Amino acid sequence: MKHTKIKDLLAGSNLLQEVVAKGWVRTFRNNQFIALNDGSTIHNIQCVLELDAFPEETIKRITTGAAISVKGTLVESQGKGQKYEIQANTLEILGDSDAEKYPIQPKKHSLEFLRENAHLRIRTNMFGAIMRVRSTLSYAVHKYFQDNGFFYVNTPIITGSDAEGAGEMFQVTSLPLDGSAPKNEDGSINYKEDFFGKHTNLTVSGQLEGEAYAMALGSIYTFGPTFRAENSNTSRHLAEFWMIEPEVAFNNLDDNMDLAEDFIKFVIKYTVEKCEDDLLQLEARLIDEEKSKPQADRSEMTLMEKLKFVMENNFKRVSYTEAIDILKGSKPNKNKKFQYLIEEWGADLQSEHERFLVEKHFKCPVILFDYPADIKSFYMRLNDDGKTVRAMDILFPGIGEIVGGSQREERYDVLVEKMQALNIPEEELWWYLDTRKFGSAVHSGFGLGFERLVLFVTGMTNIRDVIPFPRTPQNAEF
Amino acid sequence: MKHTKIKDLLAGSNLLQEVVAKGWVRTFRNNQFIALNDGSTIHNIQCVLELDAFPEETIKRITTGAAISVKGTLVESQGKGQKYEIQANTLEILGDSDAEKYPIQPKKHSLEFLRENAHLRIRTNMFGAIMRVRSTLSYAVHKYFQDNGFFYVNTPIITGSDAEGAGEMFQVTSLPLDGSAPKNEDGSINYKEDFFGKHTNLTVSGQLEGEAYAMALGSIYTFGPTFRAENSNTSRHLAEFWMIEPEVAFNNLDDNMDLAEDFIKFVIKYTVEKCEDDLLQLEARLIDEEKSKPQADRSEMTLMEKLKFVMENNFKRVSYTEAIDILKGSKPNKNKKFQYLIEEWGADLQSEHERFLVEKHFKCPVILFDYPADIKSFYMRLNDDGKTVRAMDILFPGIGEIVGGSQREERYDVLVEKMQALNIPEEELWWYLDTRKFGSAVHSGFGLGFERLVLFVTGMTNIRDVIPFPRTPQNAEF
Repeated sequence: MKHTKIKDLLAGSNLLQEVVAKGWVRTFRNNQFIALNDGSTIHNIQCVLELDAFPEETIKRITTGAAISVKGTLVESQGKGQKYEIQANTLEILGDSDAEKYPIQPKKHSLEFLRENAHLRIRTNMFGAIMRVRSTLSYAVHKYFQDNGFFYVNTPIITGSDAEGAGEMFQVTSLPLDGSAPKNEDGSINYKEDFFGKHTNLTVSGQLEGEAYAMALGSIYTFGPTFRAENSNTSRHLAEFWMIEPEVAFNNLDDNMDLAEDFIKFVIKYTVEKCEDDLLQLEARLIDEEKSKPQADRSEMTLMEKLKFVMENNFKRVSYTEAIDILKGSKPNKNKKFQYLIEEWGADLQSEHERFLVEKHFKCPVILFDYPADIKSFYMRLNDDGKTVRAMDILFPGIGEIVGGSQREERYDVLVEKMQALNIPEEELWWYLDTRKFGSAVHSGFGLGFERLVLFVTGMTNIRDVIPFPRTPQNAEF
Repeated sequence: MKHTKIKDLLAGSNLLQEVVAKGWVRTFRNNQFIALNDGSTIHNIQCVLELDAFPEETIKRITTGAAISVKGTLVESQGKGQKYEIQANTLEILGDSDAEKYPIQPKKHSLEFLRENAHLRIRTNMFGAIMRVRSTLSYAVHKYFQDNGFFYVNTPIITGSDAEGAGEMFQVTSLPLDGSAPKNEDGSINYKEDFFGKHTNLTVSGQLEGEAYAMALGSIYTFGPTFRAENSNTSRHLAEFWMIEPEVAFNNLDDNMDLAEDFIKFVIKYTVEKCEDDLLQLEARLIDEEKSKPQADRSEMTLMEKLKFVMENNFKRVSYTEAIDILKGSKPNKNKKFQYLIEEWGADLQSEHERFLVEKHFKCPVILFDYPADIKSFYMRLNDDGKTVRAMDILFPGIGEIVGGSQREERYDVLVEKMQALNIPEEELWWYLDTRKFGSAVHSGFGLGFERLVLFVTGMTNIRDVIPFPRTPQNAEF
């Protein structure tokens, strides 16, 4: 007999009928009540065993983590805490779980311990909820773009370009590292002998290729893994993370801001609707965690309130120049509480400044735009003032930068001049320059770090906890 | 004034109103008729210029590939070939395209030439159609799984494991290749000094991690890039390709076949419904191409007929043993036309055998199952006969293997024994073995090479033409 997912059983389908549930034992109380979970929902189904109806040998094997199959009648529950339960007739142990050795005990584990057991942490309520939310957010991303006429583009992961300009890169090679790799006459490595016939890296961004596609398909988006070989051991950085990069022909920076804001609101709304149970669980976890903090450090809003706030309020749009004025006159700047004091226009904003703007000053998501050209990438559209570019960053409370984007420099001459000033070889980006040579047009796009979005929506604080198997310096386990 | 996508204009919205269209000029006839495309659809909108209403200077700049903006009235067309057209009032050149230099001329280019211009080939009808179909197929993949209670899992791209067992791997490193990388006392590279503190590669499959997730969430799927460092310069192989890998707890091999067949039929059906115009264009291309072939070499079915055939007919399920019997007695085997003659049970099937079974013998998609253990991976479930495993491959006409899957070996002892026989170190897969130690259960999954599916649906024959920027030996351009 085919089993039914616990999510469907708990929705009351098959009431008073014989059903089969399969899953993993979460708890077993009084030799009678099994809380069974199959991952389809955060909720367990209670399976009730009649006392003495099952051999002791079987009862002993109903341990936390064991996989079992239960056949019985789905009935309305008399007990508290659940609407329906299964009155078990037969029970089969599919896979044992040695209660002494199973790492995931029915108690609170530290997040660090769970990271070391990333293959099993998904069997906890918390990580089940996080990963279901992550999956739903992913789907919302695709749904938003597809429903709005965007085409999904898989830009390359292995790139022969060093000029993507977003950070340190990992090398990809088939050559040996022991010094025996073929060399040129000048002693440098002869990459013609490598697999791709050139030096290759893992991509840091699909933007440049995405632009080429936008200049043909109109509206495109990427959603794939990107990489940074930066030794940043922080709670906000991963060496391997997933990024979403839409790019739209004929969009200017205002259109770009509208798109980013509408997109973020949609995916959060969709996820709140689809994952209410999981989010309530994560909210309860946060409330519980906050109890140990002094009143002043607790959040003003619950997780759901915070998500609702983002959905329902306009993001504040502030130019870099305005932001600098606010920061210059701010208390932490005057009292020298910032680690990097803001003294003049042109300063790069640090995380502490972004957080001040978002969390203390505006108390809502903020879009900063029109940054100094000197602190931004070569491909951003130069404003008529000659010193700022049409860049935008979206800053979120508790997260910092979640989106970075810009209107792109569509003028061939200006772009070439900028590349020359930065020593970016034209030969390497010949194809990118072609898009400005043949039918160039205003276009804009942005990149959104997916894990930062998952952090925000789940209320988690360490980015290692919102991706299944995190890659960070000195860590590529599993 | 905001522009409207050409797809919407051609659907007749805004009829008799003033509209703005933006896009790239495909052709310009008689100094009067512009065929404008913006990538939103395969169809161009005709923009009609009143003779002598525009300065000659502007008219000259309306060249193939130029980006323009046209404002005018959307009217019913009096001409043939289109229902609606724009009577242009104003026209702006957004970006010129030097007619002498623009590589994509309004004529037939070779596929090889277009590959060398992968950043511009997307501006042709053919590649616009292919990439819109690819995008729609991608979305259908997500839609199928999400609608059926599967969770999307991003398994790691950078892996510390050499034991994924699906092929040659690319190394990922931050160490120098010139011989100066830190070494151990025995002269080997000291990978503790590499970024991740160990030797790392690009993943060849997310299956093992996917299994760990299925053993907690029940039904999961991956959809991400995978890599093979194999020097296969064929029309069916890429060094970087996208793979879909569902994994389902409690599914046996029959369930697995049902899932794969249902899934493939759904994504094709969805795409045929959403991309009819693009597919008809690709079908017309094929019909045109076939005209130059002798009658005997032409397809029996058009592209649409072939897709309909797959949607509407059951895949033939055949055991490896039956297949060997068929092949042994087949004409090409008896007449020694096969390069590799089938002489006895246990032989690995080559592409020529698979194609014979699918294209000549059964003439429909075929699921082969229960392969000899010796020619399949360590993680496949051993049958009671002790010599076959619960493996399955799905073979498609013109494509060959499109799916490879299996019921997984869920028995700890049997799995360990198999790993030992193949010298796969247990320390490396300790976490994978944990899934068999704690609450193991029957489970199954498969991998589907996404580009092969796109090949099948678009009727293209070279896999380099169905991914935006292909990575193959000696080629990582763009």
